[in-house]
Amino acid sequence: MGEFDLIERFFKRPARRAVLGIGDDCALLQTPAGSHMAISTDMLVQGRHFFTDVDPRCLGHKALAVNLSDLAACGAEPMGFTLALALPHIDEVWLAAFAGGLFALADSHGCELVGGDTTRGPLTIGITVFGSVPAPGGQSQALLRSGAHPGDDIYASGHLGDARLALQALQGQLSLPPALLKATRLRLEEPSPRIALGMALRGLASAAMDLSDGLVGDLGHLLKASQVGATLNTETVLERMAARSHDVWAGAGVSHAQALHCVLSGGDDYELLFTAPPTARSAVLAAAQSSDTPVTCIGRIDAQPGLRLLDATGAPMPHHFASFDHFA
Amino acid sequence: MGEFDLIERFFKRPARRAVLGIGDDCALLQTPAGSHMAISTDMLVQGRHFFTDVDPRCLGHKALAVNLSDLAACGAEPMGFTLALALPHIDEVWLAAFAGGLFALADSHGCELVGGDTTRGPLTIGITVFGSVPAPGGQSQALLRSGAHPGDDIYASGHLGDARLALQALQGQLSLPPALLKATRLRLEEPSPRIALGMALRGLASAAMDLSDGLVGDLGHLLKASQVGATLNTETVLERMAARSHDVWAGAGVSHAQALHCVLSGGDDYELLFTAPPTARSAVLAAAQSSDTPVTCIGRIDAQPGLRLLDATGAPMPHHFASFDHFA
Repeated sequence: MGEFDLIERFFKRPARRAVLGIGDDCALLQTPAGSHMAISTDMLVQGRHFFTDVDPRCLGHKALAVNLSDLAACGAEPMGFTLALALPHIDEVWLAAFAGGLFALADSHGCELVGGDTTRGPLTIGITVFGSVPAPGGQSQALLRSGAHPGDDIYASGHLGDARLALQALQGQLSLPPALLKATRLRLEEPSPRIALGMALRGLASAAMDLSDGLVGDLGHLLKASQVGATLNTETVLERMAARSHDVWAGAGVSHAQALHCVLSGGDDYELLFTAPPTARSAVLAAAQSSDTPVTCIGRIDAQPGLRLLDATGAPMPHHFASFDHFA
Repeated sequence: MGEFDLIERFFKRPARRAVLGIGDDCALLQTPAGSHMAISTDMLVQGRHFFTDVDPRCLGHKALAVNLSDLAACGAEPMGFTLALALPHIDEVWLAAFAGGLFALADSHGCELVGGDTTRGPLTIGITVFGSVPAPGGQSQALLRSGAHPGDDIYASGHLGDARLALQALQGQLSLPPALLKATRLRLEEPSPRIALGMALRGLASAAMDLSDGLVGDLGHLLKASQVGATLNTETVLERMAARSHDVWAGAGVSHAQALHCVLSGGDDYELLFTAPPTARSAVLAAAQSSDTPVTCIGRIDAQPGLRLLDATGAPMPHHFASFDHFA
C-alpha cells in the first residue's frame, strides 16, 4: 500500500461541511457570515507526548482532543482540521485504530478532516484545527487570555491532576490500585475537550485558556496576558479540583505532596481555566449546567501582578510549580 | 532559553493581517467578504525531505514555499500560516537563520505567521497555510484538479528537473560543474511558489495543480481527477521544459536518460501544471506575462483516460515514471 492508497483507505471521507475536502491541492472552508475563523495547531511526537506502545485508538482521540481543547478555550465551534502524519512504516491495523479514535471524536464535534499530508519518518502527528467564532459587526466574541480584571472570580472546569497521576504510575514512579489506574489513565489518554462549555462562556467569561501545561503555570500565562495577579490557597485548590478525597489518595499510597503536585502543576488536564466578574456567577453556573460540565471557583483576580500561593495555614509557599516547558 | 522565550524571540511579530496572532490559544483570521479560505498542510522530516546539514535559511524558505505552492495551485492569495516545530535541541544561530528564511518568503507574499507549537523531537516542520479565493455568489473561483476537458491545452510553468539533478549530485550519484550545481541547487533549496501565476489563472485555467512529485505522476493525478487522458511526447517535454539544452547536459556529463528522468519524474519542482481551452491561449500568455512567469504548452488533453508517453519517434514508451510516493 502506497501513500495515496493509505489516504484513500483510512482518511478520505465525503466532505459535508467543507466546500472542498481531501484530494486537491487545498481544501476550501467557508466561515459563517459575520464570524471569524479560530485556528490552532499542535504537534505530538512519539516518546515525548505519548508512549511508543500507546493504544492507537487513544492516540487518534488525543491528537485531535488537545487541538479541540484550544478551540474550546476561545469559545469556537469546531469546523474542520488537517492532519499531517509521519509514520515509520505502514501498519494497517494500527492505522485503522488510529483513524477510528480520531474520527469518533471528530464526528462527536461535527469537525471534519479536510486535508493532510503523510510521509515516512519518526511517528509524529501534526493537527491544525479550524473553528468559527461569532463576530457581530466585526467584533469577535472569542475568549482571550487577556481580559481578566481585578475582582473577577477564577474558575476551572472538571477535575485536575488525574492525567499526571496516571503518567507517574505508567512511568513506574508510583503504584496505583487497578480501578484508580484505569480511571486516571482514561483522563490521560482520552481527554474530553470542553467545547460546549467554551461556547456557553462567550460573552460571559472575561478571560479563558485551556489547561495543558499545569494549573499554576497556565494561570501565570493568563495573569501575565491580563496584566493582573492572583492569590491561590493551594489546599483549597486541591480540595476542590482533585477528583477524589484525601482519604482515597492516602489509601492508594499517594502522598499529600504528590497529590498537590499533580493538581497544581500536573499538566495534560485539558480543562478550561477562566475568569468572570462576580456579577456573572449565576450565569456561569447556568453555562456549566447547560454544557453539562462541572465548574468550580478556585480564587480571585487581584491587581498586584503575579501569582501568589498560600499553604493550608495561609502562609506564602515557595513557588516551585513551574509550567511544563519542552526545553526547560 | 525555554519554549516560551524561543517563540517570543524568534517567531512572535505583531499581527498585521490577522484579527489575532501568536500568543493566545487560537489565532483569529477573517477571510474577505464573499471569499472562501483555502487551506493546505505539509510536513517536512529531516533525512526524508532535507539533509541534516541543510542551510537553515534555505530550510525556512522551503518549508513555507512548498505550502505556498499549494495555495498557488488553487489560485489563492496567501493570508497566513501556522508553524509546528519539533527540535532536537535549541540552537540559537540555527533558529535565527531558519526564521530569517521563513519570514523573508512570508513577507514577500504578505503571509503572516499566526500561531504555532514548539516541542522537543527529531527535527520536523509542520506548516499549515491559509489563503483566500474569491467566491462571488458562493461560487468558488478556486482552480481544481478536476476541471480538464478533452481538447484543452496542457501547460507547465518555468522549468522542470533542476531540483532532482541537484539532489542526485548532492547524493553523489553524479558530478556537476560548480556553476550548474549552484544553479540547480537553488531550485532544490529555494523554490519560488507561483502565487502570482495561480491568481492570474483564476477563471482561465480549467484545471491546475502544483508539481511536487514529478510531472508524469502528478499529471496522472490531474487526469484521473478530471476523468480524461493525455498523450505526451517525452522528447518535446524534455526540449521545452528543461532549463538548458541537450548540449549543456551532455557537456556536464548528464546522460539523455538522466535528463529525461529528471524532467519527467524528478519532483520537487514546485511549478504549476494546468490546462485551459485553446480559446484561452492569448489570455494564458497574458497571465504568464502579467505574473512574470514563463509558461509552456506541453501537450493536449484527450478523452481516452490515462496518460500515454511517446518517444522521439512517436512510438509508445513503457510507463516507468511513477509519481513519488513516501511509502512505495
